[in-house]
Amino acid sequence: MVDKQFVYHFGNNETEGKSSMKNLLGSKGANLAEMANIGIPVPSGFTITTEVCVLYLENNQYPSGLMEQIDRSIQKLEKEDSKIFGDPENPLLLSVRSGARISMPGMMDTVLNLGLNDESVAGLATRTGNERFAYDSYRRFLTMFADVVLGIEYNEFESLIDEKKKELGITLDTELDIDALKDLTEKFKKLIEKHTGEPFPQDARKQLQMSINAVFSSWNNQRAIKYRKINKIPGEWGTGVNIQSMVYGNMGNNSGTGVAFTRDPATGEKRFFGEYLINAQGEDVVAGIRTPKPIDDLKNNMPEIYGQLEDIQHKLEEHYRDMQDIEFTIQEGKLYMLQTRTGKRTAISAIRIATEMVEEGLIDKKTALMRVDPDQIDKLLHPMIDPDISLDVVATGLPASPGAAVGKIVFTAEDAEEKVKDGIKTILVRTETSPEDIGGMNAAEGVLTVRGGMTSHAAVVARGMGKPCVAGCGDITIDMNQGILTVKDIKIKEGDFITIDGSTGNVIIGKVELVEPGVTDDMDDILKWADEVRTLKIRANADTPHDATAARDFGAEGIGLCRTEHMFFGEDRIPAVREMIMAKDTAARKAALDKLLPMQREDFIGIFRAMEGHPVTIRLLDPPLHEFLPKHMELTKTIRELKANNASQDDIDEVRKVIDRVESLSEINPMLGHRGCRLGITYPEIYEMQVRAIIEAACELNLEGMNIEPEIMIPLVSHTNEFEVVKNDLIPVAKTVMKEKNVELEYHVGTMIELPRAALTADQIAIEAEFFSFGTNDLTQTTFGFSRDDAGTFLPYYNEEDILENDPFAVLDQEGVGQLIKIGIEKGRSTRPDLKIGLCGEHGGEPRSIKFGHNIGLDYVSCSPFRVPIARLAAAHAVLENEEK
Amino acid sequence: MVDKQFVYHFGNNETEGKSSMKNLLGSKGANLAEMANIGIPVPSGFTITTEVCVLYLENNQYPSGLMEQIDRSIQKLEKEDSKIFGDPENPLLLSVRSGARISMPGMMDTVLNLGLNDESVAGLATRTGNERFAYDSYRRFLTMFADVVLGIEYNEFESLIDEKKKELGITLDTELDIDALKDLTEKFKKLIEKHTGEPFPQDARKQLQMSINAVFSSWNNQRAIKYRKINKIPGEWGTGVNIQSMVYGNMGNNSGTGVAFTRDPATGEKRFFGEYLINAQGEDVVAGIRTPKPIDDLKNNMPEIYGQLEDIQHKLEEHYRDMQDIEFTIQEGKLYMLQTRTGKRTAISAIRIATEMVEEGLIDKKTALMRVDPDQIDKLLHPMIDPDISLDVVATGLPASPGAAVGKIVFTAEDAEEKVKDGIKTILVRTETSPEDIGGMNAAEGVLTVRGGMTSHAAVVARGMGKPCVAGCGDITIDMNQGILTVKDIKIKEGDFITIDGSTGNVIIGKVELVEPGVTDDMDDILKWADEVRTLKIRANADTPHDATAARDFGAEGIGLCRTEHMFFGEDRIPAVREMIMAKDTAARKAALDKLLPMQREDFIGIFRAMEGHPVTIRLLDPPLHEFLPKHMELTKTIRELKANNASQDDIDEVRKVIDRVESLSEINPMLGHRGCRLGITYPEIYEMQVRAIIEAACELNLEGMNIEPEIMIPLVSHTNEFEVVKNDLIPVAKTVMKEKNVELEYHVGTMIELPRAALTADQIAIEAEFFSFGTNDLTQTTFGFSRDDAGTFLPYYNEEDILENDPFAVLDQEGVGQLIKIGIEKGRSTRPDLKIGLCGEHGGEPRSIKFGHNIGLDYVSCSPFRVPIARLAAAHAVLENEEK
Repeated sequence: MVDKQFVYHFGNNETEGKSSMKNLLGSKGANLAEMANIGIPVPSGFTITTEVCVLYLENNQYPSGLMEQIDRSIQKLEKEDSKIFGDPENPLLLSVRSGARISMPGMMDTVLNLGLNDESVAGLATRTGNERFAYDSYRRFLTMFADVVLGIEYNEFESLIDEKKKELGITLDTELDIDALKDLTEKFKKLIEKHTGEPFPQDARKQLQMSINAVFSSWNNQRAIKYRKINKIPGEWGTGVNIQSMVYGNMGNNSGTGVAFTRDPATGEKRFFGEYLINAQGEDVVAGIRTPKPIDDLKNNMPEIYGQLEDIQHKLEEHYRDMQDIEFTIQEGKLYMLQTRTGKRTAISAIRIATEMVEEGLIDKKTALMRVDPDQIDKLLHPMIDPDISLDVVATGLPASPGAAVGKIVFTAEDAEEKVKDGIKTILVRTETSPEDIGGMNAAEGVLTVRGGMTSHAAVVARGMGKPCVAGCGDITIDMNQGILTVKDIKIKEGDFITIDGSTGNVIIGKVELVEPGVTDDMDDILKWADEVRTLKIRANADTPHDATAARDFGAEGIGLCRTEHMFFGEDRIPAVREMIMAKDTAARKAALDKLLPMQREDFIGIFRAMEGHPVTIRLLDPPLHEFLPKHMELTKTIRELKANNASQDDIDEVRKVIDRVESLSEINPMLGHRGCRLGITYPEIYEMQVRAIIEAACELNLEGMNIEPEIMIPLVSHTNEFEVVKNDLIPVAKTVMKEKNVELEYHVGTMIELPRAALTADQIAIEAEFFSFGTNDLTQTTFGFSRDDAGTFLPYYNEEDILENDPFAVLDQEGVGQLIKIGIEKGRSTRPDLKIGLCGEHGGEPRSIKFGHNIGLDYVSCSPFRVPIARLAAAHAVLENEEK
Repeated sequence: MVDKQFVYHFGNNETEGKSSMKNLLGSKGANLAEMANIGIPVPSGFTITTEVCVLYLENNQYPSGLMEQIDRSIQKLEKEDSKIFGDPENPLLLSVRSGARISMPGMMDTVLNLGLNDESVAGLATRTGNERFAYDSYRRFLTMFADVVLGIEYNEFESLIDEKKKELGITLDTELDIDALKDLTEKFKKLIEKHTGEPFPQDARKQLQMSINAVFSSWNNQRAIKYRKINKIPGEWGTGVNIQSMVYGNMGNNSGTGVAFTRDPATGEKRFFGEYLINAQGEDVVAGIRTPKPIDDLKNNMPEIYGQLEDIQHKLEEHYRDMQDIEFTIQEGKLYMLQTRTGKRTAISAIRIATEMVEEGLIDKKTALMRVDPDQIDKLLHPMIDPDISLDVVATGLPASPGAAVGKIVFTAEDAEEKVKDGIKTILVRTETSPEDIGGMNAAEGVLTVRGGMTSHAAVVARGMGKPCVAGCGDITIDMNQGILTVKDIKIKEGDFITIDGSTGNVIIGKVELVEPGVTDDMDDILKWADEVRTLKIRANADTPHDATAARDFGAEGIGLCRTEHMFFGEDRIPAVREMIMAKDTAARKAALDKLLPMQREDFIGIFRAMEGHPVTIRLLDPPLHEFLPKHMELTKTIRELKANNASQDDIDEVRKVIDRVESLSEINPMLGHRGCRLGITYPEIYEMQVRAIIEAACELNLEGMNIEPEIMIPLVSHTNEFEVVKNDLIPVAKTVMKEKNVELEYHVGTMIELPRAALTADQIAIEAEFFSFGTNDLTQTTFGFSRDDAGTFLPYYNEEDILENDPFAVLDQEGVGQLIKIGIEKGRSTRPDLKIGLCGEHGGEPRSIKFGHNIGLDYVSCSPFRVPIARLAAAHAVLENEEK
């Protein structure tokens, strides 16, 4: 039997892979092959497939035939370079890199210069005539191999270098002479033996196997698992291993290395954008250890190379029809591409690139739409610093990821993760970040680093996460031990507030006012194209004329949920509301409600006016009455104060009465208590007042010539009889008002479906109800039996331990809650085929949930005004994703 | 077009109906026709169908042709009796009675002597030669007509009679002479005119039409609606009207009237049992106004009539093959049967009659089973007075409805209904009861009346309801105004405790200890026959060896729910439980749990032993931890006390720590909080201890030779991952214990399905879970979004207003919750066809819910031990009802 192909060669002479083979070769491997195919210079090499990784992790051994295939590829490299792998005289040296289907910074780093040993380092010195280069390469190899393959702390090697420098009275690595480097390699090997109990492996093949194994194993290291969790990458994919002939950016001043983007990843501007370092190896740029030069400088420095690079970047972008993130190395005046991949970008940039590429004819509108991640837009709609405020900027770094953030200073990722559990907002301040910090970056509001450029780890990851980031802010020094950040002689303590602006790079001490952003022209284009594609309507949840106006501005096509209780909390209303609750009988309750009527009416007039005739769904009073009364503890405190001030017994008795009412209204499980339509049924006069206010407001505007069709929504229905009782109580009120105003109004009475029983008996409810709106917050609570207020004791643990994939209050649980929604839709439409159905929980603004809603046949979703653009785009994605299938 | 038949004649010459036509003719009408068919003497007459009632109530007019059909029937009666309806000289007089498909005491009473007026009363006097009889009949007719047709208070007529008696210095009605009666008829007519504004209708046909209309309208009076609600009778049925030639039990000492049962309705003994009054009209017996004589006396008094009656009762019982409740009238030595119907009976009686009729060959076992209502058995299993207690019996009345009851004295039905809302148990004490009292009788624990016999309203209704009742307790006097009951010079106030024993007629002042009853031999027969028929297994919910033994005695086939938290509350355990909750870390928690382990193990050993190898399902800890700590208020009180007693600061701090823990554990909605498997996941050591205790106990008994297969049940699962995490944690514990004990044990791990999401994803859960048990209490809470603890603010109103037909916590909501259960069963068995499925909520002992459970394919239901017999019978009914279909 012939063994399966586990190794795919690429290079000048022969290339077996291509870009469409990402699943098998990993993204890096497939793109290296593709570049070779289209004539772009890459160091030759080969990719071990992701399948091998999976097999190895399952069986803890290589599949049969793998080593033979590797050998054959190495022989090709040996032939091409006229070098021999493991040869003491003329050694072929290799780089080993991991490369999964999707780029994963959490995984194993690179091992360079593999194949060196005590003998071949001498051979390399002889061949290159550069002994210093040879030993510098050897000590780098030892360090990297020890770090990423053997798991020995990088710092231990650094310490030895620092000692050596101190001994020699020098400060820079480049000042280390050949003897020093030779001595260091000996020390490094001893350090390795001390840690592993075995000498450093001199055999090149052994080095290679150990490195391959380390790449495979890194797929399951903690960082990688964490990264996969955050980015929803399946654990079954595995990673590929890319092994290439070494090229050197550190062979002198005609060598160098860099990274670049075909367009600006922060703004989207169409310009070649990147950084490079002369006489450096690749990782130096990305790790942010030395601050690199802008790519434009290369034009002057090495004009020929720059010209080649320019050609290549154009070729790559046209070939891939998307913005590319590339890595290159210049070895003694010859350019090699080490990597190309789809560049990560900010939301602003994604939108600008997508719209401009449509203008350029590179892609069509639908492709442009799919290039913008709805989740990402959210970041754009996040707060920014109020432009009208004059700022006291203490320092400015690189504007590495746009958006502003305010938070308390923390100096470690762990602290950021700790604080967020208590709801404390933080800014993570680090000298530089590393993959270990990902969890903390995710937890913090924003990231501030002292070192590193626009493509440093901090910058790339923050942009991906949509977190504001200011990078390379050299004016800052950090004293971790004291917990103090110093900037221009000002000392700020851990826990103090700081504000960063990732769009400008500004750093401000203290809390700065943030404002909500608007929609840019590019975004407007994208959203308009989204509107052309999508079929799902988008409404907003808005309770005030102000919110309603914001909703319209963001493109909402109506209000899906207007929560009338929010109007009850107004300072001018709460006394009447409390009077209503304290009322001894129906007559007194009605008298209090009469006071609220004109205010409610004005609320509705304002909202109707703002919505200009678009549909408005008004939910009648939902929360339990005790929410409107002061807390028990406040009241007993008031009594103590009254007594201390010798208040009259009457005054004290008055407060006592409120306490009695608070006690009589107290419930063991208020979420499942006397609220929603249960209130409307037991105190019909409340809903009667609200319906009168709604109908009066609508009539008034209709007399002005507007066409208002209010949708009255009855909450918390579990049985169709509840709906009927309330509806039959309300219709006469509506009729009376219309008669009084002499207006014939179209109005609709529908219900929230937010209890499992309502979904299960939707066929019966739909006989009476003209519309449904799924209240997925409460539906999630009851379907899971989770109280949103209390789930904090176990839900975070559930998410950490993967017991639940997502927080079901953030991302709709399609399997359980979604199943009930499907049942509700199907049953509801079985008795009323033209039933209008929406969704108005938190999930209405969450892209995955919106797509689900589209696919199961909702008419609309309703979300917070600021998430309306996200919803518009997600709804378009839903259509396009179905077309792709 | 020929009109539909609206009127069905019956009598000596021609009978159009039969007993199977109850739906059309009502029960009374169908049985009158049947008696005529089999040659039993009934006064001739006719029945207006229930369809006419429905049409009349819909259209407020008679259907076309009705009056012609009535006229034709009246002509037949005129011909038979040689009298003319409405004739002044020789009037045909009629009785008018309502009669629905099912006997309904809440409806219109009888109108007798209809057809009399100012002229015909004279004719009647002449024809009968009995002027006093004629005017006595006339004044009775006026009173009844005014009361039931015109709605004038009966008391107003009574007052006029009382005045007249005072005026004449007499005390008994029978002492009223002709002049007095004549004068009273005049006064009665004036009273009627005063109330209605119109003279009393002299026209016989008008009297008849008004009476028919009154019967129809009475179908929708408040009493009837309330009765239908309690007895679940559809409002659409309507009532029939029975119109018959009058026969008179009040024509002197050779006349009389009585009611009787073919067997003793209280004990079931096979003996002719009844009561009669000489020279009285029918309603006198039932209303309990005069205390009647036992039927045995009739043997001496009128031996020939008694002989006929004996023959008829045998004939009726053999014909109907069930115990009959009959009414008869003797008119001047001639016997007429006025009614026969299936007799109401106590549970004891139902069981004895059913078993004896099987012995007698009258019915088969299956019929016998269907003759015993599972709901009724419940009463038998209710407490009775501890036979070992010596009682201070202050009075003895008639043992009208068996069983003992203890409660606070109330004197009105309204009070009984009020008190029960606050959970206060009452005994309703009345001079006599009337249909208006039904609600109060239902609400009270038992009923005590001063007047009335074994067939009085109080006795019949109480037996139907299964309420203990002592009737006709003449030693008692009631002063309603003072709220005082006097018995033998002892005064007892409203609100004082009293105990009644409806099995002996005893009345005892104060609270008497009640004991649980056992299963009689007859019941044992019925239950054994039920066991032969049923396929659904019956288990019990039991948490202690004592309850487990009781469960076995009642025939439970296993324990379906053993709640381990009940064991945590024991006085010897609660300190260790609290130590466990207060533990700072896992080690301290484990140390506390180690103290609980031996106690838990002994609990399980006791329960396993009691169940003798029958399956035992043990639910792991379910409630939130704060339930085991003292209440916040108690603790602050303790601190105040400690301070007052100058306790040490350490002692105070200790309590403060508990307060802190109580606060940290407090939840807004504990029902949806940190409990069930959520506890087991976050504190795995708790479940580990419990599983160790279970497996150790089972191993120990298996070593003794018993075969114990414990079923370990994980509560509150919403997602299969929760189940898996807990299960994977527990299996190693079980394995370790089995290894330690060197026992190979069969044990099963399953789950409660008590959250909607669990039912909806049962297919996934069943891959891991070996059994399901539907926890319908919590499932009802989450499906409806009702908190059982808080629903008291609206649920009673929902039931009153028919928004919900039943309390869903008592009777399973088949439509909503039941739908989820069906989904859960179907999905669960789709991935594990042999999945064992039970139900262990309160509903497991409720007959309708049990039948539902049988029909949807449950393997078993589990209920409280005392409801096991009910469940066994209900499960048999489920099979038999399906066979009938």
